[in-house]
Order: sequence, then structure tokens, then C-alpha cells
Amino acid sequence: MRRIEVGTGSGGYPVCVGHGASSLLPDFAQGAAASGRVAVVSDSNVAPIHGASIARALESAGLNPSVHTFPAGEPSKNRQVWSELSDEVLAAGLGRDGCIVTVGGGVTTDLGGFVAATFMRGVPVIHVPTSTLAMLDASVGGKVGVDVPGGKNLVGAFHAPVAVVADIAHLETLPTVDFSDGLVEGVKHGAIRSGEHLNAIRDSIGELRRDHAELSAIVAASVGIKASVVAEDEFEGGLRQILNFGHTVGHALEAAAGFGMPHGAAVALGMQAEARIGEILGVTRVGVRDELADALARLRLTPIPAAKPEALLPYMTVDKKAVGGRARFVLLEEIGRVANDGGWSREVPREVVIEALQRELK
Amino acid sequence: MRRIEVGTGSGGYPVCVGHGASSLLPDFAQGAAASGRVAVVSDSNVAPIHGASIARALESAGLNPSVHTFPAGEPSKNRQVWSELSDEVLAAGLGRDGCIVTVGGGVTTDLGGFVAATFMRGVPVIHVPTSTLAMLDASVGGKVGVDVPGGKNLVGAFHAPVAVVADIAHLETLPTVDFSDGLVEGVKHGAIRSGEHLNAIRDSIGELRRDHAELSAIVAASVGIKASVVAEDEFEGGLRQILNFGHTVGHALEAAAGFGMPHGAAVALGMQAEARIGEILGVTRVGVRDELADALARLRLTPIPAAKPEALLPYMTVDKKAVGGRARFVLLEEIGRVANDGGWSREVPREVVIEALQRELK
Repeated sequence: MRRIEVGTGSGGYPVCVGHGASSLLPDFAQGAAASGRVAVVSDSNVAPIHGASIARALESAGLNPSVHTFPAGEPSKNRQVWSELSDEVLAAGLGRDGCIVTVGGGVTTDLGGFVAATFMRGVPVIHVPTSTLAMLDASVGGKVGVDVPGGKNLVGAFHAPVAVVADIAHLETLPTVDFSDGLVEGVKHGAIRSGEHLNAIRDSIGELRRDHAELSAIVAASVGIKASVVAEDEFEGGLRQILNFGHTVGHALEAAAGFGMPHGAAVALGMQAEARIGEILGVTRVGVRDELADALARLRLTPIPAAKPEALLPYMTVDKKAVGGRARFVLLEEIGRVANDGGWSREVPREVVIEALQRELK
Repeated sequence: MRRIEVGTGSGGYPVCVGHGASSLLPDFAQGAAASGRVAVVSDSNVAPIHGASIARALESAGLNPSVHTFPAGEPSKNRQVWSELSDEVLAAGLGRDGCIVTVGGGVTTDLGGFVAATFMRGVPVIHVPTSTLAMLDASVGGKVGVDVPGGKNLVGAFHAPVAVVADIAHLETLPTVDFSDGLVEGVKHGAIRSGEHLNAIRDSIGELRRDHAELSAIVAASVGIKASVVAEDEFEGGLRQILNFGHTVGHALEAAAGFGMPHGAAVALGMQAEARIGEILGVTRVGVRDELADALARLRLTPIPAAKPEALLPYMTVDKKAVGGRARFVLLEEIGRVANDGGWSREVPREVVIEALQRELK
């Protein structure tokens, strides 16, 4: 079992990674819920697989769990489903002395975390991520929220969990397409901070579904990179922007498609496009885009449908990094190193964005 | 001009009280909005009176304001109106580098503050309270949120403002019934912390609408009491519960009536009922209930319709102070002093609650 501490202003929390890590959940829940009341939030895919066993484990520890399920998929990550879950949790009798446990992928972490952030002005949340995306990324850092018609994650909060329990065993039932899609965030962690980590993912992809030790190591290394960035900048004032590499374009692709697209595949194309932007501008070493594309190709991601570059631009200006309504991009210097030009993101001439998108989206 | 500093973990903020205090708004907004974009949130009663002049003042300082209006009244303090305001503010081009200014009463402060707390995971908010309730209470302390069918303020956040500008001149257009209703929170501040403050309100009620100096002094004294409590306990872990005196019963009255009732009138009856509970239990000096009732009677509040005590009980168990699903009450020892029994709130036998309610609600 690996334990990574995420340091924050409010004291930090552990991320426990390993096969069987979910055995730690009842202890964390007892610490978080003085009343013993625990509301488990999960989706219609994951609840039938893990809901009953997690509820049983909580009951065995003397806790009083209820399970609240919502329809699986990114379209559920909205204010309506958040409202319904909040009302359900209230009707089930959760008070401020209870806690919420999310069990699922990134949508569940973000949505259930936002329920916790706003329920009676905030109750503790414990994340049990069951997808690679949620383990590597969504469950760590305290960002929670929902999508709105105007864009992705535009309504939400910072609400750090009290603990994250990343049980590698939960990945066994994850469809391969989702398993690979989530690893894109791991490639991103390598791209911004560690060429070694990127190479480790690239070279082990074929084995990861069978090799628990290697998978635990990859997950823990990615969490470690994210934790180091978040610890320096919990509320995204500066450095934390580098975690948005690939996301200015990636989020625009998703928003333009109505969020029906796999997040990892969108970010993968976004990273390639943003590496190309950097190469055109002379900020990124020429060749970085191709090295990223090579590693990402091995993930066999869902193909992204063709899109008009011009149609994507408006979505970039409502990105949360935007300043004065103008889009900003995180650019690499090199694999493992983000360029800093007095800040971690910058504006880019419209024609450069269009050119890069045209070459990636054809 | 009086300036009260509210100390919080994240650095604190000023509350400026006085006739003409709103002249300070543009400076605060410039400090909070690097982009110059300011979204003013106000209701259909207040926007026609103050919206244009506030927008003009912001424009004169080189800022770029937009005004967003919602239908006046507590029934608007819900998730639907919060969603609509968030979408409007987004469509108007506000980014994370902008700020929100609320102009109005407690509903506007709570609702607009919750928009600010959740917009792009949080943008700065400045409150310009225009009612006694909002000046004395709602604008100070960082509590924001909305009502849900299950109860009042059950979804929300802690989101401290960067500044509060309480311009006594804005009270001139406030209907007298609302002016008096808001002073109930001032009576409460006296009841929990200062008999002198309670007497000052009681004895000056007849003059307050004309006497700006006395009104400023009363508002500033109430803000000072609230600030001293909030500074000790920003996130309501302990002491801050004393601000809930009168509110276990008051909120239940409001929830049972579908939130159509004036907040102050409900809390006034709640304080009398909770003082009576304390007297029955021997915790509160006998006579406190009558002294409170005497001061409150001078406010000529809206009468509260008769209600069945039994029908109110379920609403008390979903109160945010509830522990293990059981209602809790803040009880006075004496005017100006809350009883502490190892904690600032306690459970009360059901029959005592019923008896007190029966005597107050007839």
C-alpha cells in the first residue's frame, strides 16, 4: 500500500493507493462522521458492482450508510442531478455530523463532491475512485463541480476530501476503453513534470491491466505529481494552471460536442494541439508534439470526430484560465517542463490556434 | 463612517457603515476585479431604485458593470434562480478575474453570494446591503446559500466577502415593515451578548428612521457583535451557534409556511419560544422571555399565523445544528449571556418544546 499526503492550507489528506486499499474506508468514515451516518453516492454502472459491498463494509464497522445512485455518464454532471442528490441525501437523514462517500469515476467524484461541498454549507467527503481518471486526477486536489450549458466545470467549489482510497482492484471491472482514457491524465502529468513518468506509462501500457504492482506504481506516481502541484497552489492562483495543459482545447472540444465525448480522448487531442501551438511559436522544442502523439497512440483512444476550429474558439474564452475574456494556453518547453513567461499560461494569436487545430482535427 | 474589521482565517474584511458609505464601492471593486468586469446582482424591488446609480458609479471609476435582476422575495432564494443568475453572469462575460456585487436585502446577499461562491469555483463578492436585516446580519459572516424544499439555507457555502458597504442612506427607501423586521437580528445580538445593545434598540426604535447617527451606531454595534462571534468561529464549529438563538423555532415556522413569512417576525417568535423553553428548564432566568417580548413588541412586527406545534417539530430535526437527527436549541442564561452546558446548543425534551410552542402560538 502506498500513502501519498496531499498538503493543503487546511491540513492535508492522505491518498491511499493499492490492491485492497478500500479496506481502509470504514476507519476514515468513522473519523469523518460523528453521527455514523454515511451517504454513498455512486452511478448506475458502479453502484451495482461495488455499492452493496461498500455499504456492508461500512455497516460492519457500526456505521449507518445509505446509497444514492444517479444515471451514469457526463450528461448527469449537472445542476439538476446535483439538486436531486442533495434532496435525497437530506431525506435520508444526513446531518452536518455525517459524511459523504463517492464511489465511481470522475463524474461521481466531481458531482458527489459538489453535493458534499454545498450540503449544509459543507460536510466531509471521502472519495473511492473506481476509474483510472478518478484515481490519477479527479479525486485529488479538491476541485468539485458540474457542467453548465456555457461550459465544463464552470460551477463548483474547492472542497478537499478528508481521504482518498484508490483500490486498484476496482479497476478490474472497468471497460478497457475507460481504463486507457483515464491514463491520458497520467501522460499529462509526465508531459508537465516528468519525462520518466511519461515513458513509464508508454512502455508499460500493454501490461498494466495484469500487473497490479506496476499499475499501483503508475497511479501513485501520478498522484504524487498532482499532489506536489496542488500543495504549492491549492486554489489555482498560479502554478496549478499547469495541470490544465491540453485542457483549453480539450474542454472546448467537449463543450462543442455537448460533453458526449470521452474526456481523456479530448485532452489527448488537446495536448497534441497545444504542443503544436508551442512549436509554431518557438516555445516548445520541435518534436515534442510527435513524442506525445506516439505515447498517446499506444492508448488506442476513442477517435475524436472532425470539428471546425472556428467553432471551438468561443468555448476557449469562457475557460476558467481566461483573462479579460481572452483564451490562455499552458505551453511546454520540453517533455517534463512547462514554459513560464512571467506566468504559467499565456495568450496565443488566433491564427496560430486555428493553424494548430486545423492540422490536428483533419 | 465606522469601519469594523471581521477577522477570519483567510485574512478578514472590512464592514463600512455610514451615511454615504457606498461611495467606497468602486475602490473595493477595483481591488477585487483585475479585469474590471463587475456583475451586480439585485432584485426587482431594489434594482430600479439603486441599480443605475451603482452601475454609474462603477463606470465612472473605469469599471465595466452589468446588472442582473431576479424577482424580489424569499421564494426566489432557490437553486433555479441561482442557476439562472450563474448562466446570465457567464453570458455577460464575467471571468474568474471579475467580481460580483450584491445590492439588496438578505435574500440578495445569500443568493448572489452563493452565485459568487460557486461561479468558476469562487469569485470575490462585495455586499451592498440595503435592508436592516442584510446590514446587521446577512452580509457579515460569509454564510451564503439557498432554501430547498426540505428546509431553509440547507444548500450553500461559506464564502467571505472582500468588503461590505452598509450605506445608511439606502435604508431611506426601505418599507417600515422591513426596516423593523430586520432589527429583530439586532435584538438577538443584544440577547446573546449585550443587554446594553438590546436596550439601545428598544429605547431608540421610535427615532431610528430619522436619526442617521443613532441608526449608524446601532448597525455598527450589531455588526461588531456578529464580527466578534464569527472571528472566533468562522465555520460554525462551536461558538457561532449562539447566533442561532431563536432560529431553531424561527426556521421551522418559516419552512412550515413555505418561506412566505418575514424572517424577523419568525425569529422574534422563535426567541420568545426558546426563552420560554429555557425558563421551563430552569436554564434561563424567569422574566427574560417577557423582557424580550416587550422589546420585540415595540418593533410592531407582522403577526405570525397560528400553527400546530407538532407540525413544526420535523423541521427542527433537519436544522443544521441537529446532531444525530435530534433538534438542538441555543438557550440564554440571562439577557446578554448564552448558557453553556459543555456546548452552545443542547437537546430539549419534546414535551417542553411542545409546551413552549403552545403558549407562544396561541
